[in-house]
Amino acid sequence: MSSVSRMTRLLRRLPKNLCSYQRCMSSLGVSVDSGGVSEPSRPNVVTEIPGPKSKELLKELNQIQNSAAVEFFCDYDKSQGNYLVDVDGNVLLDLYTQISSLPLGYNHPSMIQALSKPENMSAFINRPALGVFPPADWVTRLQNSLLSVAPPGLNNVQTMACGACSVEHGLKAIFIKYMRDKRGGSPPTPEDLNSCVINQEPGSPPLTILSFDNSFHGRTMGALACTHSKWLHKLDFPVPDWPYVRFPNLKYPLEDFVNENKAEENKVLEEVEDKIEEYNKRGTPVAGIITEPIQSEGGDNFASPEFFQGLRDLTNKRGMGYLMDEVQTGCGATGKFWCHEHFNMTDSPDIVTFSKKMLTGGFYNKESFKPIEGYRIFNTWVGDPSKIALLEEVIQVIQKENLLDNVKVTGDYLLTGLKNMQTKYPGLLSKARGLGTFCAIDFKDVESRTKVMKTMRDKGIHTGACGVSTLRFRPTLLINNQHVDIFMDVFDSTLSSVKQ
Amino acid sequence: MSSVSRMTRLLRRLPKNLCSYQRCMSSLGVSVDSGGVSEPSRPNVVTEIPGPKSKELLKELNQIQNSAAVEFFCDYDKSQGNYLVDVDGNVLLDLYTQISSLPLGYNHPSMIQALSKPENMSAFINRPALGVFPPADWVTRLQNSLLSVAPPGLNNVQTMACGACSVEHGLKAIFIKYMRDKRGGSPPTPEDLNSCVINQEPGSPPLTILSFDNSFHGRTMGALACTHSKWLHKLDFPVPDWPYVRFPNLKYPLEDFVNENKAEENKVLEEVEDKIEEYNKRGTPVAGIITEPIQSEGGDNFASPEFFQGLRDLTNKRGMGYLMDEVQTGCGATGKFWCHEHFNMTDSPDIVTFSKKMLTGGFYNKESFKPIEGYRIFNTWVGDPSKIALLEEVIQVIQKENLLDNVKVTGDYLLTGLKNMQTKYPGLLSKARGLGTFCAIDFKDVESRTKVMKTMRDKGIHTGACGVSTLRFRPTLLINNQHVDIFMDVFDSTLSSVKQ
Repeated sequence: MSSVSRMTRLLRRLPKNLCSYQRCMSSLGVSVDSGGVSEPSRPNVVTEIPGPKSKELLKELNQIQNSAAVEFFCDYDKSQGNYLVDVDGNVLLDLYTQISSLPLGYNHPSMIQALSKPENMSAFINRPALGVFPPADWVTRLQNSLLSVAPPGLNNVQTMACGACSVEHGLKAIFIKYMRDKRGGSPPTPEDLNSCVINQEPGSPPLTILSFDNSFHGRTMGALACTHSKWLHKLDFPVPDWPYVRFPNLKYPLEDFVNENKAEENKVLEEVEDKIEEYNKRGTPVAGIITEPIQSEGGDNFASPEFFQGLRDLTNKRGMGYLMDEVQTGCGATGKFWCHEHFNMTDSPDIVTFSKKMLTGGFYNKESFKPIEGYRIFNTWVGDPSKIALLEEVIQVIQKENLLDNVKVTGDYLLTGLKNMQTKYPGLLSKARGLGTFCAIDFKDVESRTKVMKTMRDKGIHTGACGVSTLRFRPTLLINNQHVDIFMDVFDSTLSSVKQ
Repeated sequence: MSSVSRMTRLLRRLPKNLCSYQRCMSSLGVSVDSGGVSEPSRPNVVTEIPGPKSKELLKELNQIQNSAAVEFFCDYDKSQGNYLVDVDGNVLLDLYTQISSLPLGYNHPSMIQALSKPENMSAFINRPALGVFPPADWVTRLQNSLLSVAPPGLNNVQTMACGACSVEHGLKAIFIKYMRDKRGGSPPTPEDLNSCVINQEPGSPPLTILSFDNSFHGRTMGALACTHSKWLHKLDFPVPDWPYVRFPNLKYPLEDFVNENKAEENKVLEEVEDKIEEYNKRGTPVAGIITEPIQSEGGDNFASPEFFQGLRDLTNKRGMGYLMDEVQTGCGATGKFWCHEHFNMTDSPDIVTFSKKMLTGGFYNKESFKPIEGYRIFNTWVGDPSKIALLEEVIQVIQKENLLDNVKVTGDYLLTGLKNMQTKYPGLLSKARGLGTFCAIDFKDVESRTKVMKTMRDKGIHTGACGVSTLRFRPTLLINNQHVDIFMDVFDSTLSSVKQ
């Protein structure tokens, strides 16, 4: 025991020690105490992109795995704040942030701090089986991180490793609740218990989940059955025949089409009811509905708060679960911590999934969607305490620096700029839209979008695509108006050159 | 750019700096340079388990999520080597290691070192979207870690976040290959591309995967369809009706039942062929077979090399894929790095999945199972470079310290001890079996197993259960004969008291 307690004592002393990592970094001129983030003042492109070093590495990686999706290789040591540096020394203003997954940009002082805290070390190197042997500080850490930003009405949380797993287990919580209600309080029968193990009814009932066209919820088999955006996600996979309904197709500008859009959404809500009836009648009952609050991968498709309230009302009326998938929309990018908070729903969704900028996967759920038995929502790791240690710092920075306000201010500025561009290039652009910095604009076709994105990248602006011909904005929560100015200058000059 | 390059320069200088984390730890008396692991000399139990602090924390956690599976809370700062310390100060010899997921035990110096290396920092705090923007050193790191221990015949590797995702994407690689072969080189038709998005044929074909009774492959919908061990994993979930066949039920001791066991395995191989015919005929073709080399969660069920060779032969003959799931068996616990290396197969499996002790999820695959298009095996993170940074150190320690040899020596000693106990307590114990330290023994019933495990835990020995009434051993790779002696003393005295 002596060595154990000695190590503990030493770890406790570490913060006061001259050579703690934090002081060390500080003495080297890298600030880790303040929120001040240093970053390049503007983009700087010195080679074609991908450059020669990226191309060389790509050849090597292609020997190891299919690498057709790789755009370029990055120097993450050199990247800072909103700027991503590639291996050829190109400095790019990053408006895509690793597919919307870096809340505070690159090498943020608070992340360095989280890594250097002695009380976090154990979380990084002793990954526990959280569902059976949680660490001493697990409850406190959950309270300081995930529960401190829980969506209204949801006081339970379950961590997971990634977005797809979060959706899969969120759906399982819906199935469990649905069948518990169906049994009316009776325990499962021996026949239930035996048949489920061999994938047969009644233990494995033919339940379904209703999702929407152009949705994206992940790539494991259950999540994939709810995903309907691109064939690359789906071709050749035997996903179950679960119901889907088209997503409302709103006309822009929204203020000019209020009645039409309301009628469109009501029609879709009717189609949802019809589809549920259809699947219930054919013996494949719909246990729940899954939506993104903004369809992200599928093209940044918005619907109104009334539409989501309508889905909430009809799922409540029918005893179905409602899963709001905030994997891409969560963690502040829309100006509220959770996008669905914009909807002011009279009753919250039953499950809210998260991942990406939250650094950990997982889901919130209502108490009524908590399983009764243990080991039902479970796997070896069920999450990773080291990601929670990082998330604690992220949430503190968001709160201390009022980043939600920053997102609103910068988002308004960005959206105004996009609308100006749309007015200036009406043949090229349409449907400028957004909440916070979670903005998008459509191109007239995929070719023009591709060309503009490529040209902008050559000028140091790194953006992402979604849907058929949409440009999506997924900057860090730290982006400010100066970054928008840099982007908008390049966007304008690029559009101008494409138009000619 | 100046701040970027300054930070880079500073990071490069860090190793030489007086106050690097490593030297810092060293000056505090914690060795991070040598392989020497300090740990308690023996277990020490000071409260009931779970103790009062664990019980208090459990009450709190139960407010946040279902915590029925939680056994006790741990003090991971104090845990060291093979010894897990709980929040009540109990020191347990850990033969279960977080459900078989800690290769080098707690707070191993090499893990502290990995965390302190400046060249690793970026991997811990800037998690990239690896499939599109990999880090500069990604190829090198894959070569130094996963590829340096690749199973024979498999030169491709794909990282993933967890075991279930690894299986899901491994199965997808099988489906992709199967349909590519079926199309005979032709590209997918527009009908294929359109129908798959809405979960319909022909793009979403009704393919199936054959698995075995008592298997465990994970808890997301596709992996769960291949899992047949316990109802807690499966009840209420609409998994597809994929074929399964009973796993060979070998008689022990193996040397006394050579002919019977061979006949049993041949019979199962015939049943596999029959089941494939049946599913092919009903229009749900079997695209592949999935097995664990030792069924772990399902009860540590072994089959012979000839059985696995038989599965390999019949999948090759029929143009099906063969996935060997080494999530629990991989990373050295059987005395070879991959358990299926014991089988000396004439042709390797097509896919080998891993997770747990490998610290990262993922799978190896043959070149022929590499998808042609990008974005097919993909998600936002597709793994985590920080886990690869830790795995690099694990593999170095395994090689430098000849841990596979250690596992063989200690495993032989453990199995001999288990066989002695079985001889001493024939009414209680049977089927002592194992490869390396991946050992197990059966109790006459679940009650006696539960009682023995509980009594041993009260004496400081922490073990795990599997199957119906099996005790499984999943120690670290560092376990030695002294640890086995400590366990065997407690085991013997416990069995003796239970018997009375």
